[in-house]
Amino acid sequence: MGLDLGVDVAELTAAIVDIESVSGAEKALADAVEGALAPLGHLRVERDGDAVIARTELGRAERVVIAGHLDTVPVNGNLPSRVVGDRLYGCGTSDMKSGLAVMLKLAATVAEPRRDVTYLFYECEEVEEARNGLARLALSRPEVLEGDFAVLMEPTYATIEGGCQGTIRVEVTAPGERAHSARSWMGSNAIHRAGEIIDILRAYRPRKPVVDGLEYHEGLNAVFIRGGVAGNVIPDECVVTVNHRFAPDRTLDEAEAYLRELFAGFTVKVVDGAEAARPGLHHPAAADFVAAVGGTPRAKLGWTDVARFSALGVPAVNYGPGDPPLSHTKDEYVEIPRIRECEERMRAWLT
Amino acid sequence: MGLDLGVDVAELTAAIVDIESVSGAEKALADAVEGALAPLGHLRVERDGDAVIARTELGRAERVVIAGHLDTVPVNGNLPSRVVGDRLYGCGTSDMKSGLAVMLKLAATVAEPRRDVTYLFYECEEVEEARNGLARLALSRPEVLEGDFAVLMEPTYATIEGGCQGTIRVEVTAPGERAHSARSWMGSNAIHRAGEIIDILRAYRPRKPVVDGLEYHEGLNAVFIRGGVAGNVIPDECVVTVNHRFAPDRTLDEAEAYLRELFAGFTVKVVDGAEAARPGLHHPAAADFVAAVGGTPRAKLGWTDVARFSALGVPAVNYGPGDPPLSHTKDEYVEIPRIRECEERMRAWLT
Repeated sequence: MGLDLGVDVAELTAAIVDIESVSGAEKALADAVEGALAPLGHLRVERDGDAVIARTELGRAERVVIAGHLDTVPVNGNLPSRVVGDRLYGCGTSDMKSGLAVMLKLAATVAEPRRDVTYLFYECEEVEEARNGLARLALSRPEVLEGDFAVLMEPTYATIEGGCQGTIRVEVTAPGERAHSARSWMGSNAIHRAGEIIDILRAYRPRKPVVDGLEYHEGLNAVFIRGGVAGNVIPDECVVTVNHRFAPDRTLDEAEAYLRELFAGFTVKVVDGAEAARPGLHHPAAADFVAAVGGTPRAKLGWTDVARFSALGVPAVNYGPGDPPLSHTKDEYVEIPRIRECEERMRAWLT
Repeated sequence: MGLDLGVDVAELTAAIVDIESVSGAEKALADAVEGALAPLGHLRVERDGDAVIARTELGRAERVVIAGHLDTVPVNGNLPSRVVGDRLYGCGTSDMKSGLAVMLKLAATVAEPRRDVTYLFYECEEVEEARNGLARLALSRPEVLEGDFAVLMEPTYATIEGGCQGTIRVEVTAPGERAHSARSWMGSNAIHRAGEIIDILRAYRPRKPVVDGLEYHEGLNAVFIRGGVAGNVIPDECVVTVNHRFAPDRTLDEAEAYLRELFAGFTVKVVDGAEAARPGLHHPAAADFVAAVGGTPRAKLGWTDVARFSALGVPAVNYGPGDPPLSHTKDEYVEIPRIRECEERMRAWLT
């Protein structure tokens, strides 16, 4: 299953989509990517597990990283790919094999970029953190992620989405005291007490800070609630799981401190969290990118792998041809003109 | 395993306790009760499943029913029974084999009561409604429960507890609309919405109506709450299970209507419910009972099988030697003086 990098980017996207690569089973696609890039004299190509790293080594003053994940969510009766008008349908077309096709076209054809380029293809983005290929490389070989700027080709409908918001989940627990529900005043109802936690959530007004020129929009939400012992017992515990999304002007530690203060008087236990990423659009490589791509960059509100670059001090943005709402759907498709647009703009930036 | 009804009521209690009768396995005890009562010429004794019914048929103008369940919760390393000072320890001592011993002593020795008496021993009170022996008889042979007044010998520490409160459980559902928690304003959070349900619960002030001279104390409590889809999704449903305990001046239908009005705007689904029972202490047989027993009757706040009598138009009270908080505990015991007290007072009432 070789990949012919000489074909048009849309045709290349279809070829990549037709190599199934559900998370954990990316080997065939990683082999095809490695096999297509290895013969190119202007690239140094390495394999690391099911990640493929291809670098120009021209001694340029700056280096940029262009990254994308090889895996998709499970196939849902939506393979092989098919073209209908201007759309290419199939699993992974938007998220994010059209981005991989752009990367491969650039890697094959831009032999002398203005800045050195690292093309980084990795596995297991669609599954749990512990399996994420970029997380693995960031730990084992952080130098692979190093650069002055990074572009992650996740679906953004060909718009720059800068940085990403952080996320933290905490369990906020309301206490109580059990009693028979026929004599409820002998106890103390933890679910009723949890009303105070919900009061705080309802009174919350989100910050919308502007960071590096982009406006973010925070959020604070209960995502789970559970409580109760039996149908005739006053419950002695009610746990509200709260998810806070925070803008990149705050660290994860600051977000945690904010929640602990907000829910003072309740037990607050951190479940998980991830740092936000600043867009860093003032860096020269980033400014050039914005100029080449055009349009108005917007803030990325969800958390993405750009934060892994940010954690290493590399400013990063999301930019890719896919359409975010179509990700993970049975009817996933990508608009072919968006793929061509991304390829052209990226090429203009690199050359 | 015969029962000798000639022994003292405390010794008889111990003998009954030592015949294991966990719910569903009452046969040995039912056999022993039937075998002890059948030879007595002044009683007509019947067996119905594992229920035993023994009646005087003296043609008195009134009839009273004295009832008790044969079963216990599972044994918990607390058999055989043992006496320590004034206490008899063991599974079922309080709930309610000391009551059964009083019934058997009265049945054996009060050959000519002032009112005809029905002694009713039944199975499966400690388990689900569908297996309850009194519920079965109320449906299949309601005449067995008929009388002018009934005493259920559940543990009350030798105090009259009149009637019982009703209970109804409803699921109150707050709706929402799913969205990614990074863009929560695209959805609507059902858990936050459920705050309005908890507001209603927190604002609730219980009625304490006086019914037939006894003060009841209602209650309205969340006993369960659940909601949540995933850690990054705004939840679209939150369900609060509410238990309302209502005084016997209201019917189950009225309690349901009250809840539907209280939670107007939310989906309200009835899970289960049971009617309350009026104490009916103004009936002559009841007034005589109160006079004979002495003390100040109080309202029964929990639901008990007295409601099954009430549903057939028979006023009923709880009265027995056991101590309610000791029921179902490993260290369950009964105070022997309370057993003797109950036997004496009941004998005074019947003769």
